[in-house]
Amino acid sequence: MARLAGVSRATVSYVLNNTSAVRISEPTRRRVHAAAKELGYVPHAAARSLRAGHSRMVLMPAPSIPVGPLYSQFISELQWALGRLDYTVVQYGSVGLQGEEAARAWAELRPVAVLVPGTGLGPQGVALLRRSGARAVVTLAPEAVEGAHALLMDHERVGRCAADHLYARGRRRIGVVVPEEAGLEAFSLPRLAGVRRALLGTDATLTELSLAFEEQSAIRLAARWRELGLDSVFAYNDEYAMLLMRALQDEGLRIPEDTAVIGADDLLLGRLLRPRLSTVHIELPSGRDLAELVDRAVREPGAATETHTVLGATVVHRDSS
Amino acid sequence: MARLAGVSRATVSYVLNNTSAVRISEPTRRRVHAAAKELGYVPHAAARSLRAGHSRMVLMPAPSIPVGPLYSQFISELQWALGRLDYTVVQYGSVGLQGEEAARAWAELRPVAVLVPGTGLGPQGVALLRRSGARAVVTLAPEAVEGAHALLMDHERVGRCAADHLYARGRRRIGVVVPEEAGLEAFSLPRLAGVRRALLGTDATLTELSLAFEEQSAIRLAARWRELGLDSVFAYNDEYAMLLMRALQDEGLRIPEDTAVIGADDLLLGRLLRPRLSTVHIELPSGRDLAELVDRAVREPGAATETHTVLGATVVHRDSS
Repeated sequence: MARLAGVSRATVSYVLNNTSAVRISEPTRRRVHAAAKELGYVPHAAARSLRAGHSRMVLMPAPSIPVGPLYSQFISELQWALGRLDYTVVQYGSVGLQGEEAARAWAELRPVAVLVPGTGLGPQGVALLRRSGARAVVTLAPEAVEGAHALLMDHERVGRCAADHLYARGRRRIGVVVPEEAGLEAFSLPRLAGVRRALLGTDATLTELSLAFEEQSAIRLAARWRELGLDSVFAYNDEYAMLLMRALQDEGLRIPEDTAVIGADDLLLGRLLRPRLSTVHIELPSGRDLAELVDRAVREPGAATETHTVLGATVVHRDSS
Repeated sequence: MARLAGVSRATVSYVLNNTSAVRISEPTRRRVHAAAKELGYVPHAAARSLRAGHSRMVLMPAPSIPVGPLYSQFISELQWALGRLDYTVVQYGSVGLQGEEAARAWAELRPVAVLVPGTGLGPQGVALLRRSGARAVVTLAPEAVEGAHALLMDHERVGRCAADHLYARGRRRIGVVVPEEAGLEAFSLPRLAGVRRALLGTDATLTELSLAFEEQSAIRLAARWRELGLDSVFAYNDEYAMLLMRALQDEGLRIPEDTAVIGADDLLLGRLLRPRLSTVHIELPSGRDLAELVDRAVREPGAATETHTVLGATVVHRDSS
């Protein structure tokens, strides 16, 4: 490339690495860039980050389970918003990696910021990421982690809302669907705990109902329904609610007369069911707000960590409860 | 670290970089690794790939639109399968980047392989990625791209299957839903073209129906249904089919007597609708097969590019058609 540009190798590296230490004339810079383009030279992000000490990469662990429409929408928004701020979002498939081990793997890519949904990353993991050059670590989880900015997503609230609603509607024998699918515990257990808390000290009973997202599993559960003697159910989310409600209707149970049903996530499909599905509307943080938090944190890596509660939950009462 | 391990700096770098050129005793290696661990040293993937000339990173552009359950499931499987083969899947959020520009951005991370769903990456893009050290480029698209392995996903087949089915059921005035949401054209237009091809030279008419994934849009379309005089509709996929079928039923139309409805993707929700939704079952490549193709290609970067047709499409006839 040096030959093509008619300059020294040193000059080429100075130009391509944007070294500020050395003064280089514009024409020379242009000659080098032209030669680089002609030779199809692609800068090495890694090499650049080695020099610059940081990249524009925002790393997120990729979800290891198929994600629902709500989260999928959130990720797309976030990607777009961070892109607008000239960051690149990279979703890292850390299959089977946990805690510090995962943090170590992420750190190898030297991201400038790391966004961690769910729990599992301890203070050591955060420290390790910071040591490796991450200017900001942001967690989206029920509790904050020392050293990281925290967007608190309190899924207990979702369960509390649903239970308060069913109780207020006069229901006392309340079932709670706990999905059998692995990976959903992070959401289903807090939602269950929220129901438990809401009913604590009342005259209502809580019955846990394990359900797989398959027609047969719902049919089996519906067949046992009358023995269970439940008058209502919080079905984890709208998709499980649709599955269970159909099985209950096929069993000849009237919704909501015999059993009230409420889901969560406020998906469009709930409005298309008959009876229309009551649900808990969940307010996720806007991709734009989150992107701005990341950018702020990257600019001021020394600033105190921020903590925001971002998950809003409100009942949308329709015909099924 | 050298002091802690009681060895020379050179020895430390030899050990941590796994330099084979220099002989170093096991005890020494162990001492160095112990010291590294104690100091919380994290190797720089980039630096390693600079030395090794390649990484274990398989890069995929992240979808820029919220993905459906089918694709989400496919990605999770693929991540898992590649993880088993000791690759790391990284989904790159290339918002707004296209063709060569995107390829250049991906190349900066020096992935060992690149998986590109959809079209848009030309032969230049592939060449650029190969030049930058990608040992394999695999496209998942309707046509192959020179220099890349191709998994041909022929979405026209989906439309052809649906149209053949409706025609065989005696329907002649066939509507085809084209989603208004941006980003779905890559799937919706080939599906539409498939219907067109299937009906070519028959006595059936094709009517394009633009529909947004919103209740109001479906209600407006259903209100016009009788003037349209259609006897059947291919609703793009099961989710749009559920949306439209509900609006048609609320308009008092009988499914399938007045209008036959068929979706695509064979989602669980289709079996939960009444009448049960007919659909086109789509067979995506298994994550494991794809992972093995990638691994093969990485091991033999010089081998001839492979081309496989991977998208199977078969009609599942239920009660709605």
